[in-house]
Amino acid sequence: MQFNEFYNGRTGLTVGVNKVLFSEQSPYQKVEILETDTWGNLMTIDGMVMLSEKDEFVYHEMLAHVPMFAHPNPRRVLIIGGGDGGTAREVLRHPTVEHVDMVEIDETVVRAAKQFMPGVGDFNNPKLHVHFEDGIAFVDKVTEPYYDVIIIDGSDPVGPAVDLFSEKFYQSCYRALTSRGVISSQTESPWVESYHPAIRKLFRSLDTIFEVSRMYLAFIPLYPSGMWSLAYASKGIHPHDSEVMDRVVKGTTSMDDALRYYNPEVHQGSFALPGFVREVLR
Amino acid sequence: MQFNEFYNGRTGLTVGVNKVLFSEQSPYQKVEILETDTWGNLMTIDGMVMLSEKDEFVYHEMLAHVPMFAHPNPRRVLIIGGGDGGTAREVLRHPTVEHVDMVEIDETVVRAAKQFMPGVGDFNNPKLHVHFEDGIAFVDKVTEPYYDVIIIDGSDPVGPAVDLFSEKFYQSCYRALTSRGVISSQTESPWVESYHPAIRKLFRSLDTIFEVSRMYLAFIPLYPSGMWSLAYASKGIHPHDSEVMDRVVKGTTSMDDALRYYNPEVHQGSFALPGFVREVLR
Repeated sequence: MQFNEFYNGRTGLTVGVNKVLFSEQSPYQKVEILETDTWGNLMTIDGMVMLSEKDEFVYHEMLAHVPMFAHPNPRRVLIIGGGDGGTAREVLRHPTVEHVDMVEIDETVVRAAKQFMPGVGDFNNPKLHVHFEDGIAFVDKVTEPYYDVIIIDGSDPVGPAVDLFSEKFYQSCYRALTSRGVISSQTESPWVESYHPAIRKLFRSLDTIFEVSRMYLAFIPLYPSGMWSLAYASKGIHPHDSEVMDRVVKGTTSMDDALRYYNPEVHQGSFALPGFVREVLR
Repeated sequence: MQFNEFYNGRTGLTVGVNKVLFSEQSPYQKVEILETDTWGNLMTIDGMVMLSEKDEFVYHEMLAHVPMFAHPNPRRVLIIGGGDGGTAREVLRHPTVEHVDMVEIDETVVRAAKQFMPGVGDFNNPKLHVHFEDGIAFVDKVTEPYYDVIIIDGSDPVGPAVDLFSEKFYQSCYRALTSRGVISSQTESPWVESYHPAIRKLFRSLDTIFEVSRMYLAFIPLYPSGMWSLAYASKGIHPHDSEVMDRVVKGTTSMDDALRYYNPEVHQGSFALPGFVREVLR
């Protein structure tokens, strides 16, 4: 048995599947967990790869640590989506963190991940508060600056995640952020042309709303093309400020062997954009 | 019709194919050109992707410009393999270049590329000299320093390219290099475990033979996992020396719109290695 995710025509990823461990149609989407021949257990939503046990560290480290180290003292963190728990796990490695709200619309995702990807989440951590609600409505209710970091860990801009690419949503995030607030978000592959309009629109919104906004990249082998873009935006902190870099060097050293992708060189290097990627943003 | 390249079990890349344009068993390997639904024409050798018309610029720019800008005055360049002509095309953008020897063992590769990927090579350039010979034997005959830059543009370490990963071959390259000589080579995906021993052995050889050796990375969507590693080595020039970076800034500006991946930020950022990649080299 094989799983396919085609990002264009009949072109894309193929993964050998030993068996289907979980398959459930929730009110929002179809959630499946497949035991694969190469990548451990793999979660898909509506036929799109979300994460595998073997490659999830890349996405979660890059989505979490770039904004978390950029902020000088992140105490309250909001994660929109992220039901598998991997982003929260990385956020919780930061000793300054006091409170993490994780707002996942679909409890099926959390249930499936807890049962079939037990190494991914850190759900027993008392600082982590899981809410099964619509993330956009959740942020809308936060009418005063409250969160130091907001991480948007949503799926592709189809289905329930489509509004996570809207300007209105990022305006709500801005309002909910404290004065030195930082956000990150996943923003699809620059190689997949059908996503170019959504990527361009999102970065234009960030440019308009935030004082600083930048794209950065990560190698994610199970996402279409293996090249994935992420967004960084803040109320003024540049991701490569020398103070930020000092924190990255000190913080990654103290996290010791927990990190398998992110490090100070990667923090800097991931913001280097090839010419054709810059073109997508133009 | 679909083309598959599995790097483990039944896991890998799938590409939609409209038709087979070329298929020939040469004395060395099976060379095919497929018209695909997404990536233009695609060349495979023994069932492994070599390049597509739409993504080849990444590999060729990164393999060529990193060593070419590192050298202060590259006049004579040797390319081992590279029969499609893309690496030579990028090398020939450098105005200092006087003579390029391209040593491709298999004339079938050149013939197929000329016919079905006419935009890739610059075969009519009078500075380019194509030799249909074994690249390893060719370098062995160069017993005195002659080339400023040597680029190893071979296929995977199986079949005719296996010796391109040997220590002996890199010793020959070292001997053939002038006093400030630089080399680059493709060195497989750090995500594919079956290649780890070959990658590790190659970088240990470079460490032993050259004064400077480093790995760098590029996003290549049609190679296994989309993360590809390359080797840089030199007789003393560090790839991020300030003189090198000055040349990169000046040179890429004058190349204008020809470059679609490589730029000064990418030259630096591509040497940032994630933790799990560093582990492969240990």
